[in-house]
Amino acid sequence: MRLADLSERSGVSTATIKYYLREGLLPPGRQVNATTAEYDEGHLRRLRLVRALIQVGRVPVATAREVLGHVDDESLGRTIRLGAALWALPQEPEPDEEDPAVVAARREVDALLERLGWETARELAPLSPVHRSLVVAVATLIRLGYPWDAELLSPYAELMHQVAVRDLDFMETYASEEEKVETAVAAAVLFEPVLKALHRLAQEEESARRYGIV
Amino acid sequence: MRLADLSERSGVSTATIKYYLREGLLPPGRQVNATTAEYDEGHLRRLRLVRALIQVGRVPVATAREVLGHVDDESLGRTIRLGAALWALPQEPEPDEEDPAVVAARREVDALLERLGWETARELAPLSPVHRSLVVAVATLIRLGYPWDAELLSPYAELMHQVAVRDLDFMETYASEEEKVETAVAAAVLFEPVLKALHRLAQEEESARRYGIV
Repeated sequence: MRLADLSERSGVSTATIKYYLREGLLPPGRQVNATTAEYDEGHLRRLRLVRALIQVGRVPVATAREVLGHVDDESLGRTIRLGAALWALPQEPEPDEEDPAVVAARREVDALLERLGWETARELAPLSPVHRSLVVAVATLIRLGYPWDAELLSPYAELMHQVAVRDLDFMETYASEEEKVETAVAAAVLFEPVLKALHRLAQEEESARRYGIV
Repeated sequence: MRLADLSERSGVSTATIKYYLREGLLPPGRQVNATTAEYDEGHLRRLRLVRALIQVGRVPVATAREVLGHVDDESLGRTIRLGAALWALPQEPEPDEEDPAVVAARREVDALLERLGWETARELAPLSPVHRSLVVAVATLIRLGYPWDAELLSPYAELMHQVAVRDLDFMETYASEEEKVETAVAAAVLFEPVLKALHRLAQEEESARRYGIV
């Protein structure tokens, strides 16, 4: 398809597509003559992923380029290719390790991972910004006087694990490795607002069932 | 306790506490003489809730005052008191109802609620900003070429319902109605970052289990 068709099908303006091409976020089309290039379904998929990262995930252009570099690097294992995207999303800043709430939170998160038997998460802990985000979130709870511990967190973690199992099952329905990784990365970004809204809606529904609506 | 002790125990500066008192976010202490007031555990709890709303939930002061007004209004049912806080959190803007992705998303969300038998959520749909956020999030998925439908969303909604059941079970462990509502409101705000981090960590763990880490 031509640039205009790619724009039409993706809902992204031709000016923005040209910008992504210049920035290396989208591979060049196949040049058919001096002024025209031809794009394919792979370009359309890639464009959707770029939109997901930049527009919804609020990832800066340079970071998006880095994520796509990992997605495209077939020498890497799938976990790293997927993880590269998760790790590139906006994360919590480094916590203050002197803060007693952070110390307590780190202890509870460690206890949680041990209790769950999440061996990889324990192994990756010193490196993983995802692990750090959890410590920061739990530290905020503790600091504000809600002393959530490993025992309270554990059933929530089990439920989120069931969510993650579904995420990856869904990813595996795609045929090619490239589509699998692209879908997983896009889903990681796009699905968070859906889960948050489902959670709030479920709270509303459950509250109404228990206590009525008036 | 005195203002200085309230500050010490809450980790909130006396200047900020005085500001909250002036803004009506915190009820006045019991005046013991011209210059000294006495505060109790209720003040400490309320202060924690105010911090949760403003600092973590990024709720403006005027909105926080409105939320607390609902929390304190014993003439309201518990669902409304809890809902007032959820509804006051930052939500998605009104979707463009002419947008085909929004039309499709609304259809899928309606089908989802029907399939789940979430009667209250269906009844409250025209009013609920939570419902609107779900439509907007699903519309973004659809617009970017990930055609999630009621069937795909349904198991996720069931899992988030299990999370909501735990949320309310936890709330019910508190003794007084006031503590119950305060805890539920604080948890609604503070627990979202925890769930998000648990979800990402679970994806990391599950991916490593299936595909290894290299």
